[in-house]
Amino acid sequence: MTTARKASITIKCKAAVAWGPAQPLSIEEVEVAPPGKGEVRVKILATGVCHTDAYTLSGKDPEGVLWPIILGHEGGGIVESIGEDVTTVQPGDHVIPLYIPECRTCKFCKSGKTNLCSIVRATQGRGLMPDQTTRFTCKGQKVYHYMGCSTFCQYTVLPEISISKINSNAPLDKVCLLGCGITTGYGAAVNTADVQPNSTVAVFGCGGVGLSVIQGAVARNARQIFAVDTNPKKFEFAKKLGATDFINPTDYEKPIQQVLVEMTDGGLDYTFDCTGNTGVMRAALEACHKGWGQSIIIGVAGAGEEISTRPFQLVTGRVWKGSAFGGVKGRSELPGIVENYLNKKLEVDMYVTHEFKIEEINKAFEAMHEGDW
Amino acid sequence: MTTARKASITIKCKAAVAWGPAQPLSIEEVEVAPPGKGEVRVKILATGVCHTDAYTLSGKDPEGVLWPIILGHEGGGIVESIGEDVTTVQPGDHVIPLYIPECRTCKFCKSGKTNLCSIVRATQGRGLMPDQTTRFTCKGQKVYHYMGCSTFCQYTVLPEISISKINSNAPLDKVCLLGCGITTGYGAAVNTADVQPNSTVAVFGCGGVGLSVIQGAVARNARQIFAVDTNPKKFEFAKKLGATDFINPTDYEKPIQQVLVEMTDGGLDYTFDCTGNTGVMRAALEACHKGWGQSIIIGVAGAGEEISTRPFQLVTGRVWKGSAFGGVKGRSELPGIVENYLNKKLEVDMYVTHEFKIEEINKAFEAMHEGDW
Repeated sequence: MTTARKASITIKCKAAVAWGPAQPLSIEEVEVAPPGKGEVRVKILATGVCHTDAYTLSGKDPEGVLWPIILGHEGGGIVESIGEDVTTVQPGDHVIPLYIPECRTCKFCKSGKTNLCSIVRATQGRGLMPDQTTRFTCKGQKVYHYMGCSTFCQYTVLPEISISKINSNAPLDKVCLLGCGITTGYGAAVNTADVQPNSTVAVFGCGGVGLSVIQGAVARNARQIFAVDTNPKKFEFAKKLGATDFINPTDYEKPIQQVLVEMTDGGLDYTFDCTGNTGVMRAALEACHKGWGQSIIIGVAGAGEEISTRPFQLVTGRVWKGSAFGGVKGRSELPGIVENYLNKKLEVDMYVTHEFKIEEINKAFEAMHEGDW
Repeated sequence: MTTARKASITIKCKAAVAWGPAQPLSIEEVEVAPPGKGEVRVKILATGVCHTDAYTLSGKDPEGVLWPIILGHEGGGIVESIGEDVTTVQPGDHVIPLYIPECRTCKFCKSGKTNLCSIVRATQGRGLMPDQTTRFTCKGQKVYHYMGCSTFCQYTVLPEISISKINSNAPLDKVCLLGCGITTGYGAAVNTADVQPNSTVAVFGCGGVGLSVIQGAVARNARQIFAVDTNPKKFEFAKKLGATDFINPTDYEKPIQQVLVEMTDGGLDYTFDCTGNTGVMRAALEACHKGWGQSIIIGVAGAGEEISTRPFQLVTGRVWKGSAFGGVKGRSELPGIVENYLNKKLEVDMYVTHEFKIEEINKAFEAMHEGDW
């Protein structure tokens, strides 16, 4: 049986290996073991680079990782082989790896209240597959997985529950971005905040995530959408995607929350932090309207950093929330987001500003750091 | 016409006047002017004393007040006379003064999302009636109003929108407590948190407000209700009202949020801070279950104090909210809460531990400070 035979082969391929913190990624030949029981091996055809990859690589990540590791969590690929007991995907399926799985059996999945499936969290956080081993070897050395995805490799192995099967008509070099940033921002607006028609929105930080919040707010027919960023070059994309107002905090002497409250007759209905800066998170909360304003934290803060505010802000009706992967359940809901893209309801192409070969991955990081969004 | 004639008379009566911060209240004869247009004069028959009165009297309140002032905001009374254009109450009506009015015309009232009517906020905050004057005089000196209520006086004047007309069968010496503490806690559970059946709840601080949160959680059929307090004497009342578990943080070496998370397989569905202590507010948030736990701040913190946490707490699905007067719209909803009391669905009598004459009001404060809840 072809599938079974394929699955028994260890594949040699290229990967960008991170040997240690704050070093450039190194292109290596790695061995990718066959998928075990309940696992799937995926040929990765495209991957995005994300600030979270860069943050982990910097060594500052409070969660910490073990080295060497294969980073990358925003990928698109095709199932190459499946392990025993895998029933929901088969070789040839187009898929997006999920850094938040959806097992449909754990307390979280069954709650109906969250996308934060926790069934493989402990092993995933330690760079391991659920059976506590890894599928990658380089130069005889064990290489760790990253966020359960490791898309900076031509082949990767994931638990079946960490794979979203999508429409095979979707170009993987575009929809790979739905594996993290775009879905995170879009979902934060439509799921976590549940933006209502005719409302007002402010988006702090107009990178890929922030631009996607703008798309979510537009999809929900928000009346006014403020793009807030200290880099005015970002306003061009924000405007194309539907932002109505553009605020550069460095143009004002007053705290930006005060500026926004004054401009909006008391504050915004919804605000989103897409910066990871805890000072901005506070400003976003305090820019909310008394009585009902909701602020959603999406950005990831540095190790040990804390958010603060006067409790009076909450007692007078503001709500402070957060969002991970836009509240999206990857297996159930991500395929629909891909359909939104195919039906031209969601812009993705514009986000692809550069393309690199795997050998040039360090240049991709440089482009991200230098980029205007 | 009797009503009109009555309304034209200035009434001389007794009041507990606060002449300055951190001084005992002084029983004085005061003059209470007739109600102006849109105003109502109420004979106060009963009032509670609240920690907020004590906090204001201490002089530490960040909002600040002007002196002399007549405190008190948890009262019950009977309409004595009405001013011009008053249509919704008449002399003889039994009423509860509202420190949060309900005008039904402002942006907040019309939003359908909040009880924080703001129409008289600016004048109320400065101790004035909406026309920027006061109705109280003592020894020829202007005396300020407090929280729009000033129930520490035998007669007080309020805007019509700051009065809730209730069932006249309700004993005012009991339901006066629905003017603040009990409604605040009960409403925080049933409105702000919207506690769901079979859920788990922790209440931090088991004074009058916390006990009322417990009642709200019981009304919503919560499965498990933790009463958390450093004074175990409070557990007796908490148990009577339906708390199922009792936690004294001083019995544990670990942070109390960690204790609770371990006891509840990951944390609570709902937590409530009823202490005003910002450290407790943080513990309450962090005791919430990942993915969906909600923490409601009810207590009022000291001047300049701030709440803090790691943003990761929110990104992983906890929600931080607050509640004022339990999210209850005073004119529309408080009469129904009085009916709940009359129908024995809400316990109030137990909260009345002491009764004092107005001349003994300083003893009432002492009893509150010394009291076990």
